[in-house]
Amino acid sequence: MTPNSRTAKNNASGTNAPTQHHFSQKHLLGISHLNPVEITELLDRAEAMVDISRQPKKAKHSLKGRTQINLFFENSTRTQSSFEIAGKRLGADVLNMAVQTSSVKKGETLIDTAATLNAMQPDVIVVRHAASGAVELLSQKVACSVVNAGDGTHEHPTQALLDALTIRRNKGRLNGLTVAICGDVANSRVARSNLLLLGAMNARTRVVGPKNMLPRGVEHMAAEVFTDMEEGLKDADVVMMLRLQHERASGKMIPSVREFYHFYGLDERKLAFAKEDAIVMHPGPMNRGVEIAPTIADGPRSVITEQVEMGVAVRMAVLEALLTNGEAV
Amino acid sequence: MTPNSRTAKNNASGTNAPTQHHFSQKHLLGISHLNPVEITELLDRAEAMVDISRQPKKAKHSLKGRTQINLFFENSTRTQSSFEIAGKRLGADVLNMAVQTSSVKKGETLIDTAATLNAMQPDVIVVRHAASGAVELLSQKVACSVVNAGDGTHEHPTQALLDALTIRRNKGRLNGLTVAICGDVANSRVARSNLLLLGAMNARTRVVGPKNMLPRGVEHMAAEVFTDMEEGLKDADVVMMLRLQHERASGKMIPSVREFYHFYGLDERKLAFAKEDAIVMHPGPMNRGVEIAPTIADGPRSVITEQVEMGVAVRMAVLEALLTNGEAV
Amino acid sequence: MTPNSRTAKNNASGTNAPTQHHFSQKHLLGISHLNPVEITELLDRAEAMVDISRQPKKAKHSLKGRTQINLFFENSTRTQSSFEIAGKRLGADVLNMAVQTSSVKKGETLIDTAATLNAMQPDVIVVRHAASGAVELLSQKVACSVVNAGDGTHEHPTQALLDALTIRRNKGRLNGLTVAICGDVANSRVARSNLLLLGAMNARTRVVGPKNMLPRGVEHMAAEVFTDMEEGLKDADVVMMLRLQHERASGKMIPSVREFYHFYGLDERKLAFAKEDAIVMHPGPMNRGVEIAPTIADGPRSVITEQVEMGVAVRMAVLEALLTNGEAV
Repeated sequence: MTPNSRTAKNNASGTNAPTQHHFSQKHLLGISHLNPVEITELLDRAEAMVDISRQPKKAKHSLKGRTQINLFFENSTRTQSSFEIAGKRLGADVLNMAVQTSSVKKGETLIDTAATLNAMQPDVIVVRHAASGAVELLSQKVACSVVNAGDGTHEHPTQALLDALTIRRNKGRLNGLTVAICGDVANSRVARSNLLLLGAMNARTRVVGPKNMLPRGVEHMAAEVFTDMEEGLKDADVVMMLRLQHERASGKMIPSVREFYHFYGLDERKLAFAKEDAIVMHPGPMNRGVEIAPTIADGPRSVITEQVEMGVAVRMAVLEALLTNGEAV
Repeated sequence: MTPNSRTAKNNASGTNAPTQHHFSQKHLLGISHLNPVEITELLDRAEAMVDISRQPKKAKHSLKGRTQINLFFENSTRTQSSFEIAGKRLGADVLNMAVQTSSVKKGETLIDTAATLNAMQPDVIVVRHAASGAVELLSQKVACSVVNAGDGTHEHPTQALLDALTIRRNKGRLNGLTVAICGDVANSRVARSNLLLLGAMNARTRVVGPKNMLPRGVEHMAAEVFTDMEEGLKDADVVMMLRLQHERASGKMIPSVREFYHFYGLDERKLAFAKEDAIVMHPGPMNRGVEIAPTIADGPRSVITEQVEMGVAVRMAVLEALLTNGEAV
Repeated sequence: MTPNSRTAKNNASGTNAPTQHHFSQKHLLGISHLNPVEITELLDRAEAMVDISRQPKKAKHSLKGRTQINLFFENSTRTQSSFEIAGKRLGADVLNMAVQTSSVKKGETLIDTAATLNAMQPDVIVVRHAASGAVELLSQKVACSVVNAGDGTHEHPTQALLDALTIRRNKGRLNGLTVAICGDVANSRVARSNLLLLGAMNARTRVVGPKNMLPRGVEHMAAEVFTDMEEGLKDADVVMMLRLQHERASGKMIPSVREFYHFYGLDERKLAFAKEDAIVMHPGPMNRGVEIAPTIADGPRSVITEQVEMGVAVRMAVLEALLTNGEAV
């Protein structure tokens, strides 16, 4: 499948008139702070970034002279690289600061770190932190924009945006689609941000997983809740698998990995219950043979590498939208 | 307090004529190599950099095409980031090289490292090293400029310059001020560089600390020496707290941390002995509740985050001065 | 010796006409894939890069807007920095990704990593990996160019090119020279790539080392094989020492380090057997007193730091050649 062929049809306006941008938020802390118009604007902006990234000379200079700090309290090569490429592709100066959690006392020191970085006059700080709410706390202590790159089990908004962009490019819309989010939902900020975004855009959301991996109150977040995969995947347009969080789940992991794969791992048999043209997603990195069969991951319905590409585009769009509010770029 | 309001009055010339630059040193190894005219020129240059850094688009291109290597044998996220931002904000290509001391045999290998880096044709190497004198040794083996980012207990010249700039912006001058440097003086290259700079600029310097934390011969470095905080802070214009170097001091640490705070930690009671408009400084990172009370650190007399901002400006000024000797920039 | 004086005479064409570039390969996986015309073109291009790197303002913009990822599964500050400087000096955006081998399951995960990086639309990935063949495998899974920065005991092509450039600058040619490659040949991808390149360019190659450090079939790779240093160095134009790979050799290391130095370490006595104007090379980092005497390493016949300088130039040439096929730059 050639992703290029899908680009044109998703241009909402369908004209060549210059796009009007209205996004006026300072931070991106979570999907819960965005309305459908803002979500749509970010996705439209990201479409344009896909085209730029596919040119041999990808330079865009809208963030030239701006300073972006990637502040990662949790290690994540993949997400950090995506943000780094996004910033550099727009001409920003990007700094990576890996903070060993061992040397950081929580609370007070997070605030001292914020005050120190803020004094260096960055334009945006991209933060990943193990504690839910830490990114919002930090945003209150700095003068610049803050992007949440994942905080505890709370939110991971750029992941939800890149997932939405991938769905929209493949299905032409979000509205009215049936999306099944499967697996370790309770520990997943990815699931949480996706449920918020898909709900806001009028998709029909389902969560599917073993009871002990479904968070309390999940019935208020998703339209439908299933503990059986066959039922949960029935007629789905999108099957979104989650990474099994061994680290976080270990204590309460009642089924073994082998049992988990048997009941909840995505294989051909289970996928057959979804629609014939359903797409398969995964935020990566995958545990092959745990939550997904290798043949599915690499198969024709998988859009997993397209998600990675959309990740760079979405982060470019978010950075540019936050830093060039109201400016022509 | 709005730092912007202080900028104008510190322009020594008071005119709009283009500044004449005369700085002609190749390296910045220590304050001991600078005379008052050179110190003043670096501070004046740094003032201009403050204004650039506060613009939304901070790009200045005076170091475009230049290569800066940050060679840190000791870990210091804060200082390294400050130098990285400084270089990038001037358009330089910046490389970070963290060298694990475990894999480095001292002496000979430092020189091999120097020869290797030198052959890659950098324009400047910024070095931090645990051994006093290591940076000067390295500077003798390379063709490019070298900046000392802290060597053992010897010097940390950019820290002294950023402290001086912060004082000058708040007090309008250095000459004649009473500056009390307090705490773990013996282990502190920050104290040493500050005493040299403040002495050269005719400030009245004091050191204050427990006897076992005052270096031998300290009476030749500072105008006055005190072991009692109340006496040492009396009528001071500037109270400069030092970080307690647990790592280095551990062996001879006779007072416990709790005792240290009682006698030498800066709290409201002790600070009351300084002038009413005294400012409080700390090079960071702070041990809150050890050498400084949190209420003081975050209080109205603290200029600690301003020091961080001045750090970037001073490093921009130093890098540009070393690399553009005699050129118009 | 002033390397500048050697530049002119090595310009093969001897005219000022613009150079025609014909290099049309996509990857640089090994010397075994290059013919003598291609090798010569890369060396000629690198000569031009030497001059650029010696300018105070080294900026060249031929890779502006391009994305280079340095993907190092083995730690190598020196090689990674050389590639990073090379890319930045040409205007590319460079990302460093250190991958802890502990967290990487071989095989499948290498391919997942490749797919992920590829989706981020880089223009070139520079790879070092502990397994021979891993880089070629990765190149089959990505759309962009791949440069081998060392894979197992297989190849290290940019090292062979920089060695060839250093020899050519000092001797005016490669053809017909006697080059002795000495020491731990069996574990050395440097030796392997050099033997391939020097053979292709009609140099007379020798390997010299203890029997247990000579690979099986070495007699098909080099023109002559010696186990005695005096015989092996006799009338050599170039003496190329290899780093003793303690890590890899440990199991079969029959001679101790002290014995190794006695029989195979390069000292004045052994070097006297080579030609009077022989040059001494080492890929670094050196084990002084193990494979080479310090006085030789730092002596007048050593071109070891020149090799480092040529490393940056060769990597600039390779990156530009791969990424600007058929374009004027």
